[in-house]
Parts: sequence; C-alpha cells; structure tokens
Amino acid sequence: MRLIGQSEIGDIAKGSAVLGTGGGGDPYLGKLEALESIKHHGPCRLVQIEELDDDVLVVFPFGIGSPVPFLERLTLKSELQVAYLAMQRWLGKPIGAIMPSEIGGMNSVIPFAVAGELGLPVIDGDLMGRAYPEVQLVTLTLYGHSAAPIVVADSRGNSAVIDSVDNFWAERLARPIAVEFGAIAGAFAFPITVRNLKVAAVLRSVSYAERIGRAIREAQNSLSDPVKAVTTATQGFRIFDGRIVDVNRKTERGWALGETVIWGVGDYSGRKMTVRFQNEHLVAIEDDVIVVSVPDLIAILETERGDPITTEHLRYGLSVSVIGIPCDGKWRTPAGIKLGGPRYFGYDLDFVPVEVRFGQQ
Amino acid sequence: MRLIGQSEIGDIAKGSAVLGTGGGGDPYLGKLEALESIKHHGPCRLVQIEELDDDVLVVFPFGIGSPVPFLERLTLKSELQVAYLAMQRWLGKPIGAIMPSEIGGMNSVIPFAVAGELGLPVIDGDLMGRAYPEVQLVTLTLYGHSAAPIVVADSRGNSAVIDSVDNFWAERLARPIAVEFGAIAGAFAFPITVRNLKVAAVLRSVSYAERIGRAIREAQNSLSDPVKAVTTATQGFRIFDGRIVDVNRKTERGWALGETVIWGVGDYSGRKMTVRFQNEHLVAIEDDVIVVSVPDLIAILETERGDPITTEHLRYGLSVSVIGIPCDGKWRTPAGIKLGGPRYFGYDLDFVPVEVRFGQQ
Repeated sequence: MRLIGQSEIGDIAKGSAVLGTGGGGDPYLGKLEALESIKHHGPCRLVQIEELDDDVLVVFPFGIGSPVPFLERLTLKSELQVAYLAMQRWLGKPIGAIMPSEIGGMNSVIPFAVAGELGLPVIDGDLMGRAYPEVQLVTLTLYGHSAAPIVVADSRGNSAVIDSVDNFWAERLARPIAVEFGAIAGAFAFPITVRNLKVAAVLRSVSYAERIGRAIREAQNSLSDPVKAVTTATQGFRIFDGRIVDVNRKTERGWALGETVIWGVGDYSGRKMTVRFQNEHLVAIEDDVIVVSVPDLIAILETERGDPITTEHLRYGLSVSVIGIPCDGKWRTPAGIKLGGPRYFGYDLDFVPVEVRFGQQ
Repeated sequence: MRLIGQSEIGDIAKGSAVLGTGGGGDPYLGKLEALESIKHHGPCRLVQIEELDDDVLVVFPFGIGSPVPFLERLTLKSELQVAYLAMQRWLGKPIGAIMPSEIGGMNSVIPFAVAGELGLPVIDGDLMGRAYPEVQLVTLTLYGHSAAPIVVADSRGNSAVIDSVDNFWAERLARPIAVEFGAIAGAFAFPITVRNLKVAAVLRSVSYAERIGRAIREAQNSLSDPVKAVTTATQGFRIFDGRIVDVNRKTERGWALGETVIWGVGDYSGRKMTVRFQNEHLVAIEDDVIVVSVPDLIAILETERGDPITTEHLRYGLSVSVIGIPCDGKWRTPAGIKLGGPRYFGYDLDFVPVEVRFGQQ
C-alpha cells in the first residue's frame, strides 16, 4: 500500500491521458475531483491486488456517456455516490475495494475522487490497460466475467441497476439511460472477487500511468524531449511528427466519431498521416496503409510539451507527434483481437503489433 | 378469499376491456396466459385487502410499452418472472401479495397469469379504476407514494431496477428500456404495504370488472341489450350510437395516438361524435363540444354484442355505442383532476362529471 496525494494524482492523470489514446474524456476534470477529495479526506490508499484477501469484492466506478459533456461538467461525484448505494443494496454484501475500469482518460482518476468518501482502497490496475469506447470491451469479457450488474445514476438521485444477460446488453441498456440523464451518468459495474480479478485484470496499470505522467513532467522540467520520454516509459514508438491540417468530428449515438489529418514536418516532411477515432483512436493511416491499429495504442502528443491531446481538443495548426504503444498481452490473444481488434471496429485487416512494424527502424 | 377459475377470468377480462376505455392492450392475450396458468397451478386466490396483515408487502405486475406489439406477442410470463426475482432481490424482504396496477386491458389479468407460479394471492383492487397510459397516473401518486422501484425485464433474462426520485422519472427511464427490449417489457413496481394500500388504492375493482363482464355475457345469452347491461352495471350513460366512418392512428414515442369518427344512427341520426385517444380514450366530442373527458371513462362497445373495442381493433363500418362511465372518486378530487384530468392531456377545459351532463336526460 502506498498513499496517493496531489502530486501522484497529477502524474496519474497525465499518464492516463496518454493511455486514453485520444478518448476517455479529459482527465483534467476527474483530476480536479480527485484533488478536492484528497483535500477533504486525505491521501487515497493505492494497493497491490496481492495485499487483499481473495474473497474481497471489488467494484468499478466510471462515467458513461459521450465525452463531450465532460467539458461542461465539473463533477460526477454525487451520481457516483447514488450509484454506489444502489450497487451495495443490490449486492447485499460488503464491497472491499474499487479499481479503475480503464486506465485511459477521466475514468482512470474517478476512483481517486470517490475512494475517500467511500473509505475504500484503490487497486493498482484496470480492465483495459487503455481506454475503449464500450462497456463490454474489458479484459473481464475475455475470461467470461460479466459487466453486470451495471448501476447508472444521476445527480438528482435516480438510479438504475441493469442486470443483463451479457455485456452486449449491458452496453445497450446503459447508454439510453445515460442519454435520458443528460448524456453522462455515474456508473458502478463489474462486481468481482479479488480471486477472479487477479487473473482477469490488467494489473499495475495505475503505476504505469503514473510513470508515464512523471516522465512527461520531468522531461518538461529538464527541457529534454518529452515525446521521447513517453516512448521510453511505454516501450512505444514515435511514428509521425507534423501539423494538424484537418479535424472532422461528429457525434453519433453518443460517440465522438471522426478523423485527424496531419502533414509531416522534419523527418516526416512531405508525408501525411490520418488518425481515425471512435471516442478513442482506432487506426493510424499513412499512404492508405494502416500502420498502427487497435488494440495497440495510438496517442497524439503536443510535440513541444509532450502533453497528450484528447480528440475534443484536436485543432487546426497544432504541432503534434503520433506515437504507437504496445497494448497489454491479453488483447493480443486471438480472443482479445476478436473482441477489441480492428475488425470489431469495421477495419478488415489482420492486427500487426506496433513493434513488428516499427521495432526494426 | 374466493377462487378465480376459468369462467371468472373470462368475465374479468371482458369487464376490464370496458374499463380499459380503448387502451391497456387487448385483455384477450392476458386472458390466455391466465387460463394457461390456472390449468397448471389451479384457481387463483382473490382476496379482499382486509383479509391481509397490514405489514404485508404488495407489488404490481404489468406490461409496459406500446399496446400494438401486444397483438403479436402471446406471453409476458417469462419477463415477469425475471422482473419479480429482481424486485425480490432489491427489496430484500418477502413479498406477500400482488394486485393489478390498472383494471383496464391486459394488465388487469396479468396478475392472474403469474399468481399461481409465484404462489401469491391477488388483492381485489387496482391503482387506477380504469386504464391510463403512464406509470405515474395512479392513485398512489395522489397519496405521495412512489412507483419506484420499477423493475423492467425481457424474456432473454435482462432486467433493470429503476429507483427514481419521482414517478415522472420512473416513466421517463422505464420507457426507453422497454423500447430496447422490443417495445414491450414485463414490469413490477409500486412496492407498498397493505396498510398504505388500503388508503391509496381503488379497492374491489377486480370484482367490479367481473360484474361488468358477467352482465355482458348474460345479456348476450338472454338476447337482451348488452350496452344497457353495461350502463346498468357501471352506473354509466349511453351517449352515442353510430357507425365508424374514420379512424386516424399513429404511433409516437411508444403511444397509440389518434381519433375515431362515428356518424350517428337511430336516435343519434344526423349527428357526429369524435373520440380521441392516447392509448386510452381521452375525450368524446359532439358538435365541437367535449361531452365526456378523462378522468371519466369513455368506452366504445359493439352495439349488437356489447363487446368492448380497443383502439387497435377500431375499423371502418363497425356499429358501435359510446358510453360514459363515472371514474373512481379519487380522480375527482382537485389533485386527481390535476393528475389525470383533461388539462394533463392538453385539453384546456374544466372537468364535468359524466352524470352532471347526462344524468338529467
């Protein structure tokens, strides 16, 4: 167990924005909530899963809905409290710990915003090792564990406990409720024992995000190359430097869909890269060839400062670097590629690990 | 306590179709389910509320969604079982009885379709004394009791426990889920003790429906006027005889909206009546004057046989009689008229009880 205070939260939030691969909502707002909570309740306890008893019950707080309203909302705290009480009532037994559902974007820091209030430790890990746009896109699905029950709630005090037969239905039923609540809802889901979670989760990813965030901060302070600091911390690859010339974006059924077009500069001069997204970046395309794809991570960083840019902040003229990061091994199994790989998102292509294409350069 | 067998179910279903005022779905299908259940489990127990202990917990099974799909679906039984188990789990204490939520249409007989399986008695009463198209339009609302939690479920095994802050939100959240489930869902709601229900329910309305159904059956058997039999059994008024010349119908946000135009025959020759509906009949209009309105009941019966016609079965050329029936006194209080009266449905008019206009004739 170690304590997570203000400085650690800042690093976790920044690293999570990298691993959010453009989606997951800007962790800045979740960070503010976490800092507020730490001010009131003191530092959060971050525990390794091995420190907990196998029978401890773990649940996962997150926001569900379109990332755009995140920009306008400062808090999900009261809806998360309503959702937690409903989850507790439904389960009928004590909950012993919480954990991020994804280590990308706002949902990575949300557990730290409620841990103090709930008096629960946060486990170092998550269910994706990145961000993904749908409830069923978690490593739990690969091990046959259900997202259900998923509890969604709003700040008025309304809640709905959705006990679905599979994760497809969990997603299908939770989303229209989030829309009724006003595009974004507080949620708890994935109740699971530590025993099962040890096998099915992506472990130690909170510390991983923290290392990435710290690397960026230290590079910024020492005036060294922050993009290189990220590729070093992630064992990732710099795949493009350029300037954004076009951003196409639409919101459809609660998703932010679109693409960013970048003209190369420096070593990449005369070349063009297109990055397509559905909340998160899905594919990076150069000369009509997909050079990186899900489940590997594609992050767009400001070249000068190394700060990750979420899709809603992409804009014409920004100098950016695109990096590819290997995903967790669980996503590279046949089942993992089937669940969260390119074909699931409509790209008819075999997954090629980023290090296979870029590791030789 | 008395036993409800096949013959009683037939009368209750027919009388409920009268009290359904055109809506609530055709009770014929609910009747088939109830008969099936009685064949398997024996007659249902119908109890007067005074026979039960004040602390007994009562819940209300019903179908929620558009009435049109009722025509294509033969059963709601498995979804109601899923919903019941979820309600039981959420409440965490034993349920002692069930009761119809409305005594109009299919939902009137649904309790008899599940009572045997659940091993529970059915209380003689309901929450409307008629049919109404929305979850919050129940007498419980007048006494400050919530519809929540409302549990909706489908036959696949999906359920959602909606714990809303008010009945407006219960309605708003339950309906999109019913739509996802395929326009119709099995539901349980309104958990309440017998103590509170004694004050807030419309009591003895199952027997009332049964008397109406029996009156129609006996009139048909004795070749006497079945429409007169209904007005006698209900203390209602025959307000029009005629032939349907026009039916306009559309389905909007899960509601059957429209109007029926009837040209008078016999004593009503040369006159025209229009009956408008939103699932249920809302107003009967003659010469641009609303002569009967909610909360009083407007039923359209086949003139020859006295059989009630639900809006989905209205068609050109049918010979029909329109009758007005006084609603339960709870709807005639200022709060009752505000909740379920003409202005709620968009008609800017003071409610005039049907016997005030027609009792002098």
